[in-house]
Amino acid sequence: MPIRLNAGEPDFESRFETFLGTKREASPDVDDAVRSIIARIRSEGDAALIDLTRRFDGLDLTPDTLRVTPDEIAAAVAATPQPTMDALKFAHERIRRHHERQRPEDDLYTDALGATLGARWTAIRSVGLYVPGGAASYPSSVLMNAVPAAVAGVGRIAMVVPARSGELNPLVLAAAHLAGVGEIYRIGGAQAVAALAYGTESVPPVAKIVGPGNAYVAAAKRQVFGTVGIDMIAGPSEVLVIADRDNNPDWVAADLLAQAEHDTAAQSILITDDAAFAQSVIEAVDRQLRRLPRETTARASWDDFGAIILVQDLVRDAPPLADRIAAEHLEIATADPERLLERITDAGAAFLGRHTPEVIGDYVAGSNHVLPTARSARFSSGLGVLDFMKRTSILKLTPESLAALAPAAVELARVEGLDAHARSVSIRLNMS
Amino acid sequence: MPIRLNAGEPDFESRFETFLGTKREASPDVDDAVRSIIARIRSEGDAALIDLTRRFDGLDLTPDTLRVTPDEIAAAVAATPQPTMDALKFAHERIRRHHERQRPEDDLYTDALGATLGARWTAIRSVGLYVPGGAASYPSSVLMNAVPAAVAGVGRIAMVVPARSGELNPLVLAAAHLAGVGEIYRIGGAQAVAALAYGTESVPPVAKIVGPGNAYVAAAKRQVFGTVGIDMIAGPSEVLVIADRDNNPDWVAADLLAQAEHDTAAQSILITDDAAFAQSVIEAVDRQLRRLPRETTARASWDDFGAIILVQDLVRDAPPLADRIAAEHLEIATADPERLLERITDAGAAFLGRHTPEVIGDYVAGSNHVLPTARSARFSSGLGVLDFMKRTSILKLTPESLAALAPAAVELARVEGLDAHARSVSIRLNMS
Repeated sequence: MPIRLNAGEPDFESRFETFLGTKREASPDVDDAVRSIIARIRSEGDAALIDLTRRFDGLDLTPDTLRVTPDEIAAAVAATPQPTMDALKFAHERIRRHHERQRPEDDLYTDALGATLGARWTAIRSVGLYVPGGAASYPSSVLMNAVPAAVAGVGRIAMVVPARSGELNPLVLAAAHLAGVGEIYRIGGAQAVAALAYGTESVPPVAKIVGPGNAYVAAAKRQVFGTVGIDMIAGPSEVLVIADRDNNPDWVAADLLAQAEHDTAAQSILITDDAAFAQSVIEAVDRQLRRLPRETTARASWDDFGAIILVQDLVRDAPPLADRIAAEHLEIATADPERLLERITDAGAAFLGRHTPEVIGDYVAGSNHVLPTARSARFSSGLGVLDFMKRTSILKLTPESLAALAPAAVELARVEGLDAHARSVSIRLNMS
Repeated sequence: MPIRLNAGEPDFESRFETFLGTKREASPDVDDAVRSIIARIRSEGDAALIDLTRRFDGLDLTPDTLRVTPDEIAAAVAATPQPTMDALKFAHERIRRHHERQRPEDDLYTDALGATLGARWTAIRSVGLYVPGGAASYPSSVLMNAVPAAVAGVGRIAMVVPARSGELNPLVLAAAHLAGVGEIYRIGGAQAVAALAYGTESVPPVAKIVGPGNAYVAAAKRQVFGTVGIDMIAGPSEVLVIADRDNNPDWVAADLLAQAEHDTAAQSILITDDAAFAQSVIEAVDRQLRRLPRETTARASWDDFGAIILVQDLVRDAPPLADRIAAEHLEIATADPERLLERITDAGAAFLGRHTPEVIGDYVAGSNHVLPTARSARFSSGLGVLDFMKRTSILKLTPESLAALAPAAVELARVEGLDAHARSVSIRLNMS
């Protein structure tokens, strides 16, 4: 059974705090193992990559077979049923168009003192995209990671995906093909992250690595951060549904279960102001669970991490709780969802109204489904075009604008004890 | 003597690679020490914070004296000489105005299928600002970190600054006051980072921590990343000057030394197409070094990490080298600097023309001086307003737009084996 909290009860605050602090993932300490994997890739290159892939993925590769061939990609595309390819194309097109709106504009201006300054945006030159293997090898994730990079103008996108015992999900290859990604290596784990960060004879290094992965991949990304850029470290998925009694409990239950089926560590939370409605949702979840192919996973998630929070007044009470939860996905299923949304700041993505299941955002809304988990929506955003670009600030002075700016710069350099700083300004002005 | 490389010589490529790979910082492995400091702060709170501050900073605090008082801040402001306060105000105003241009706009639109989607930007609620103690306690850095946060609309900015033996730089307090930061704690090191990340009885936790620090601070930021957001991990500063023979060698030498005086691990690089000019710069550096108060530091930096790279043709040869160096600061001292800049993508900040010393950017240009070091300009940007905000994506569907998007979403959920996903869409449409 999910935890039930009632904001009106005296122990609510301490129980809610405990709930917020609950770790949903055992993070095994794999730092030392990952450190030695990275060290081996750095010193031995392809040889280590091939050896580790044999050991961890049961796959025998050579430098010539590390990379997926154009023929294999073409075969995967050909093997994709037409309805699936149409759905991928529909999603791809919507994701592309949405992300094109995120392209930043350069801003160069000359101010009142005659100084020209501003910012220029350029794409990161090369990006590595990690795609998990096995059951979590999702074509939709390939689109969500590759399309913003392509829209940003990244020149080279290299994808890695482990092929345990040689198996690759053809839909992953088809999605990569749609997104214009042709450089694909059948490697995974910390060794693939290390190869992308430092390069080997067969895998040229990239400047940034994105994409989800297991504990080894997460630890490897953390360790190579600095040498390359990384995106966020993703945790298990979560949804917070704020719903009043005027919802169909079956719909709300279906949304809670769509999260729960991801992973036993996924989390589904309902905030409502109606105890009878909450009870109906719980019963609907139980009914629907029995019919789910992934019943075991969804039931474990719901029993261990699900939560029902009862409040008195949705508009007054739900927003502060929602901000503290800072959910990856926030559904607001009320008649006037904007009224609640304007009081909430911390959420990865918001889905408004009774006809907006979060799942549409997973696939075809066009917005990105790579979103901040584990309360990191307090300080970070979903993946987007800006994650694949960087800004160079620009300054150009005339002798006159330099003279206007110089005195304050020299004064500050002086009080900071940086005489060579002061001198590099004053020497141009015969001040010294 | 700095290293001298000539792009025309056959061993250039291997020598340049070695040069790029040279570590300028010994990174002591302080991970374990930092891990136990963080664990102590988490379990003992203020008591550990006070104990560690006594041990590392030689300062006896109580919960009542952790925080700098309004009287101390007022006294620091009063003690600041008028010319210094004027310079700080001048810098503050320019930084504020420049960063106001970086405020992102929300983007909400309804597409052809009737789906309303877009993005909403909100400020991070609380930010911690780390300011180093001692000689590197710079008022300019306080402005550069605090002003973008204030412009973003961050509600709470908490500053920490170690006060070794009780000493605080009054200019740091004055700069904080100007930037509107009144919550200041006299703590530093990994214990201050841990207090900001997890909170203690006297230090409420924040959502993101920014600012430079020593190896302990950097390791602590890396370890708390995830619990809170962090900015980049800053390395030693660096400048790349691209200059033709028509420059005054004294000016170029002064700019190289302005970097070198920061730190023995700082790096100053000159790329030029004229050997005689290079020689004149080297001689000018030698002359100027002898007059510098920080001669020892600057000489060590210049001798150990300085470099002169001779190329045949600046426009053809300098840009690819500049991209591989990906310098924090890039000066282009030629008659037509834009011609070079348009061929270069990887640099933290660019300073164009002969009258634009990088130092103006350190203090009063208005752009941020917190910039990516150690080649991270390949994948990251200087600090800005976006670092203190986050984006929530928004989706709102009508029954009709849901129906238009549903088939592709259901198809993709189905092929990914996520039946509860498919069901949360189809249940709203009587599809199932």
